[in-house]
Amino acid sequence: MNATDYQNTRILLSSRPEGEPIAKNFHIETIDVQEPAEGEVLLRTIYLSLDPYMRGRMSSAKSYAAPVEIGDVMEGGTVSEVVESRHPDFAAGNFVLSHCGWQSYAVVPGGRHLRKLDPGSAPISTAVGVLGMPGFTAYAGLLAIGNPQQGETVAVAAATGPVGSMVGQLARIKGANAIGIAGGADKVAFLRELGFDEALDHRSPDFKAQLKDAAPKGIDVYFENVGGAVWDAILPRLNTYARVPVCGLVAHYNDTQMPAGPDQMSKLMRNILTKSLTIRGFIQNEFVKDYYKTFQQDVAGWIASGQIKYREDIVTGLDNAPEAFAGLLTGKNFGKLLVEVAPDSTRV
Amino acid sequence: MNATDYQNTRILLSSRPEGEPIAKNFHIETIDVQEPAEGEVLLRTIYLSLDPYMRGRMSSAKSYAAPVEIGDVMEGGTVSEVVESRHPDFAAGNFVLSHCGWQSYAVVPGGRHLRKLDPGSAPISTAVGVLGMPGFTAYAGLLAIGNPQQGETVAVAAATGPVGSMVGQLARIKGANAIGIAGGADKVAFLRELGFDEALDHRSPDFKAQLKDAAPKGIDVYFENVGGAVWDAILPRLNTYARVPVCGLVAHYNDTQMPAGPDQMSKLMRNILTKSLTIRGFIQNEFVKDYYKTFQQDVAGWIASGQIKYREDIVTGLDNAPEAFAGLLTGKNFGKLLVEVAPDSTRV
Repeated sequence: MNATDYQNTRILLSSRPEGEPIAKNFHIETIDVQEPAEGEVLLRTIYLSLDPYMRGRMSSAKSYAAPVEIGDVMEGGTVSEVVESRHPDFAAGNFVLSHCGWQSYAVVPGGRHLRKLDPGSAPISTAVGVLGMPGFTAYAGLLAIGNPQQGETVAVAAATGPVGSMVGQLARIKGANAIGIAGGADKVAFLRELGFDEALDHRSPDFKAQLKDAAPKGIDVYFENVGGAVWDAILPRLNTYARVPVCGLVAHYNDTQMPAGPDQMSKLMRNILTKSLTIRGFIQNEFVKDYYKTFQQDVAGWIASGQIKYREDIVTGLDNAPEAFAGLLTGKNFGKLLVEVAPDSTRV
Repeated sequence: MNATDYQNTRILLSSRPEGEPIAKNFHIETIDVQEPAEGEVLLRTIYLSLDPYMRGRMSSAKSYAAPVEIGDVMEGGTVSEVVESRHPDFAAGNFVLSHCGWQSYAVVPGGRHLRKLDPGSAPISTAVGVLGMPGFTAYAGLLAIGNPQQGETVAVAAATGPVGSMVGQLARIKGANAIGIAGGADKVAFLRELGFDEALDHRSPDFKAQLKDAAPKGIDVYFENVGGAVWDAILPRLNTYARVPVCGLVAHYNDTQMPAGPDQMSKLMRNILTKSLTIRGFIQNEFVKDYYKTFQQDVAGWIASGQIKYREDIVTGLDNAPEAFAGLLTGKNFGKLLVEVAPDSTRV
């Protein structure tokens, strides 16, 4: 087969969402695949990773990265198979970690930005999950900013997700107590399986009281990836010198305006002052240089030893990406959300 | 004279303020002074330091230190003269840094918590100002948390006060640009005398626009001791990786309720996330062990070389302390606010 025999199905951003992303914000089309030029490779997407940060890219509001332009392919991390290579480092059949976005094929330059994956050492899907960006976000944020000490208490929300589940298990490995917060009884049960010391359902009417009971000595590290009502409940429980790494605010990504008053900003600042809190936003890139290598070694080892478990929520077919993504923002996924765009032949 | 010949005038907290502290929150009384017991010293207050943190002590709200109880002497740092000593390390005529509160005499245990002052090396009043707690708050917070780099921009409000003026001058010494914010033309003029690169009046109707012009490359460190409208103006100007040491929120100390909506807390969190900000509350005590010695050496040297200037606002007579303190919370002071309780015989 020639590259030009393949058809690329791709999903473009057709309009910016007002609040929750809906079908009409996306445009699905199919086009011919071009031949790779010298130095390029043709990739077939096996897995597309869906992650909350993508909501930011759909918006034109100023953020740490440029937005996806209207008419462009939606951005996203992918696990791809090399179909045809005109680059000496890659051969057909290789699997690579790539960033091809929401499409089934892509022609991209070869080079170090494509990391080759060994299906023998770990399932290839983990390259965008527990051994990839979400896992590293948890690892770097918790260790570099949260810095949990033996006997301290670490809390995290969206705790069955790829970031939260790593945060809690890593806290346990470091000798801290882990409080996991999730939505729904099945997720709470899974948190207990993962070894969290306490597992709370934020939908419970007495969630605030449960949190107080679960953290009798207060909270030393809150890994913030949610915001909203969970953060409101956490703030009064934070101890002096508590650390709050902030890597996401998924409860607010669909906000179309600031919530109604009263204005709690001065209350937050007062808590920061009177409890000598550290609130620190971060994007994982900042820590790649100092932490990525140890992350890969540590987490691969902990998966092998059973100290780190992970769960994937796999949706089949690229067409289902928009709906799955909307669900991710409201907590409908259960585990790391992936779209299996083409069958994963390596799966055992 | 015997100790019992002296009369101690003291100011008690008689009720907790609702909003601004007023005369009826204080009770002034005069009582006999007791003889010091073995190991104790009788101190005469020369200077009482008035500082914004005292507003917190008047309130029963949870904070980093216990409140002053109703009927107790108002707390405060003092510069005192030893009148009579029954402790081997102290003799009548010694000057000491002490924490006797709002009163003209006090009998206290001798010991290392009373630091002897040398009137020959620096005016004794500086022990509660530029060479004392406020100066150290600025020094430790700016260096340990703000960590300004050559060519970066540092902003501070209440910039003619003892903390703010040190922050700005120290930023300049470290090679950063210093933006000072104060209320009123005379204060702004003084900031220019101190060598601030930019001096802004937060009362100007176009303050936000002025701030934007004054920080064309954005703000890398904002030393937060005020809160309120200045913070609102600073937040959108903060650069990626900006640091915000928070040591005070004087604009909010008299708040009786949270401000009206919208609720800006999620906006603040979003800024923290998208700009990888560090917001860090602190109380100077935390840094005494690592920074106090170099602080004393550095600042004494910079005062001698003229690189650090300071200004004092001295009110005479303990009776005037309540009114002066209320004025401090609304920016009526101009420089480090002190009450000269008894004449300073060392002043040249």
